[in-house]
Amino acid sequence: MRDPDAFLASAAELLGERGFTRDPELMAPWLTDWRGRYAGNALAMASPASTEEVSAIVRLCARHRVPIVPQGGNSGMSGGATPDDDGDALLLSLRRMNAIREVNADSRQTVCEAGVILQNLHDAAAGKQMRFPLTLGGKGSATIGGLIATNAGGTQVLRHGTMRTQVLGLEAVLADGSVFDALTPLKKDNRGFDLKQLLIGSEGTLGIVTAATLRLLPEIGERAVLWAGLRSIGDARRLLLHCEARAGNHLEGFEVIPAHCLTAVLDHLPDARRPLASEHAWHALIELVAEEGATDGLSELAESILSEAFEAGTIEDATIAASETQAEQFWLLRDSISPAERAIGPAMQHDISVPVARMADFVQQAVPEVEARFPGTSAVAFGHLGDGNVHFHVLAPPNVVRGEWEDGEGKAISAFVHDLVTRWGGSISAEHGIGQMKRDELGRLGDPVALAMMRSIKQALDPQGLLNPGKLVPLAPEACSN
Amino acid sequence: MRDPDAFLASAAELLGERGFTRDPELMAPWLTDWRGRYAGNALAMASPASTEEVSAIVRLCARHRVPIVPQGGNSGMSGGATPDDDGDALLLSLRRMNAIREVNADSRQTVCEAGVILQNLHDAAAGKQMRFPLTLGGKGSATIGGLIATNAGGTQVLRHGTMRTQVLGLEAVLADGSVFDALTPLKKDNRGFDLKQLLIGSEGTLGIVTAATLRLLPEIGERAVLWAGLRSIGDARRLLLHCEARAGNHLEGFEVIPAHCLTAVLDHLPDARRPLASEHAWHALIELVAEEGATDGLSELAESILSEAFEAGTIEDATIAASETQAEQFWLLRDSISPAERAIGPAMQHDISVPVARMADFVQQAVPEVEARFPGTSAVAFGHLGDGNVHFHVLAPPNVVRGEWEDGEGKAISAFVHDLVTRWGGSISAEHGIGQMKRDELGRLGDPVALAMMRSIKQALDPQGLLNPGKLVPLAPEACSN
Repeated sequence: MRDPDAFLASAAELLGERGFTRDPELMAPWLTDWRGRYAGNALAMASPASTEEVSAIVRLCARHRVPIVPQGGNSGMSGGATPDDDGDALLLSLRRMNAIREVNADSRQTVCEAGVILQNLHDAAAGKQMRFPLTLGGKGSATIGGLIATNAGGTQVLRHGTMRTQVLGLEAVLADGSVFDALTPLKKDNRGFDLKQLLIGSEGTLGIVTAATLRLLPEIGERAVLWAGLRSIGDARRLLLHCEARAGNHLEGFEVIPAHCLTAVLDHLPDARRPLASEHAWHALIELVAEEGATDGLSELAESILSEAFEAGTIEDATIAASETQAEQFWLLRDSISPAERAIGPAMQHDISVPVARMADFVQQAVPEVEARFPGTSAVAFGHLGDGNVHFHVLAPPNVVRGEWEDGEGKAISAFVHDLVTRWGGSISAEHGIGQMKRDELGRLGDPVALAMMRSIKQALDPQGLLNPGKLVPLAPEACSN
Repeated sequence: MRDPDAFLASAAELLGERGFTRDPELMAPWLTDWRGRYAGNALAMASPASTEEVSAIVRLCARHRVPIVPQGGNSGMSGGATPDDDGDALLLSLRRMNAIREVNADSRQTVCEAGVILQNLHDAAAGKQMRFPLTLGGKGSATIGGLIATNAGGTQVLRHGTMRTQVLGLEAVLADGSVFDALTPLKKDNRGFDLKQLLIGSEGTLGIVTAATLRLLPEIGERAVLWAGLRSIGDARRLLLHCEARAGNHLEGFEVIPAHCLTAVLDHLPDARRPLASEHAWHALIELVAEEGATDGLSELAESILSEAFEAGTIEDATIAASETQAEQFWLLRDSISPAERAIGPAMQHDISVPVARMADFVQQAVPEVEARFPGTSAVAFGHLGDGNVHFHVLAPPNVVRGEWEDGEGKAISAFVHDLVTRWGGSISAEHGIGQMKRDELGRLGDPVALAMMRSIKQALDPQGLLNPGKLVPLAPEACSN
């Protein structure tokens, strides 16, 4: 940095009292990620209220060579929004830019600023009999800007795609403070490289998302939530193909849960009940939906799907939620897996994907392989089978010391799992992004050609390296060895 | 170029007799674009048979600084695959790489090499009761590689998206000959910038597509093809909203045709018949489809949509094709507009888009504005109203000299139309790409921030500027003034 005092004085003047602070107490909650895994320091926290203010503060940073860490709801999974220890970066919060500028049911579009909280968008859409087809656990804090910067996933990707699919238009501030304005949604536009796509999922390293035009869908008229007990994950794969063939566009979610996870959840939630009386090695949670006005036959469809699967021997037992309350209870079981497992003891968690068709085989081979290599551990895989994405958790042997185990054997386990998934042609980050957590693993395992392209693009668009330094883009091999 | 003789000798040895030629007769058909608008020269034509050969010849070009013009079926609309006059470039044909490596109905995926002709992929998919959901006029010659490089559109974009949506995995050779291999399709993958998206639509300026994994859909069980007569394009917009609300995912196409175009087609095709007895200012051609096994109620749906629209006063008259033959006849009317207009006389054609919701208003205002500014011309707009994309043709006044008019008043008309569409927040290239035809217009009208990003990325990934020089990426302002 050239002159911190001059920078700080200019920034304070530019953004005013509401938009700029160095107060340690106000900054503290935002300097640690929500799971407490990463902590850092910052020179100051800027909270601009408009795209113009974002542009102005970024220009100022560029002039003074001040690194910038953009942040939305601070609910990321990979430490991508936490600054490093140096304390020379500006923490740039987008939370004040929280206007939902438009919700248009006719064009099925909404225009949101980056700081809009996902739950608030859901509510605004519902107010117009529409819905925004992406949801996830952190919806009460995750912001639209953060969801776009990390190309977030969730439980509706099977039918509706990740955040990338929802983005029709985008506005972002680039490293020199210039504003890339592609907010106007054009369904067809072949004027060169699709720069919007490059910014989506770039985790603030190429630009800072300030607003977006997103797609909306008509609200759901009815849903049928099914719970099936299965012999194996291979049968879950067969059930998925059966559901896809029979339910087509009605199939909105397909999650798998092994016995171990269900038991953990039942232990963890005292009021929770097992959906089926019998015990099964695997469970599938399936959601079928129909839009308002097109709900005829949905429950019949659900029943035939299950009876056909039963006759074919694909499932051992199944039930359909009899009420919306029961449907919510089924989903609560699924959503409680992570906290239930945390209560048991330390675990290394991996957010991985392989081609959809290969995921069942992968799980069947990887679980015993990991457990054999690291005696005493238990490996469990659960989640979005329909997306080829599971959360692959490896639970520590009993009586290890929390904290120590993760830094020791835990690291070796993660490297082993990442090696394995890479050999299967998969991804070490399906939906959580790279951030600071997986940057070195990406450098170790990523395709050298892709990594070289990423470095060239980063260098081209952020030559001073000021946008979210240390995140996502692995250093070049020669730089690593310094 | 450093040493053409050394390069030519090495290239000939590398690719052998089938893969390399300098024979003017063999090269001639590929040195002019199919509409005869652009003609160029080349040092030689390379026709590698594998990704390894593409990689090797590109490496050789990089070493000798030989520019490369990649080419598929040579059916592009913007001269993007035609070399310039200099004759120092290598024409790189992908046509020999024409293997369909896999058609998998279970995973709904196919793996195709770049030179596969679209029609051949349609046939291969049909052989497995699947379909590839993108089609267009040039399907008998257009190749998968070219379709990806130009992010092609067509008549099914309304429901299924452009080529970008169909690409699940991609392989490309970069400027230095390295192979970017992202062929394995991962539904979720957040390992950094989505480089695949950057290559799609980059018209061979960032890399040469060699193969792709594409999505397939179950084949259609039934379709209903509707023809409606309307008072105005505003009513067509209302009919579109009505169809979207009532037919949802069954709506696959929505095209609009003004009276002028229908008359031209009826004059041009002696056997063609008017679908409706009465005359109307506008027509809508609508296709509803249902997948195999889910066709119940499609014709009832079509009938209710039309009777409701009639009662609401949105349409004046309508009919549903009574047979597959009649359905084909309706589509033939639509597909014959361009040749029918060419038969009338010279016209300036513009492939433009604005936000879907604004297209009807745009046409209503732009047509009289253009005709007033250029007396004697007639402006017509037809095509993909559901995508916010029309082909906006301005027909010459009677008795102009073909060839002269296009270069004189024609150019002024195009600039006027491009200015207009830009003021409406639209695109001067909705689906045909930029190529050499619109490069300078993109430079004149494109967002300077986006253009600067494009130039930086081009420079970063192709520092010698060897990949399809002179196409798509406008020169920097200072370079233009030289």
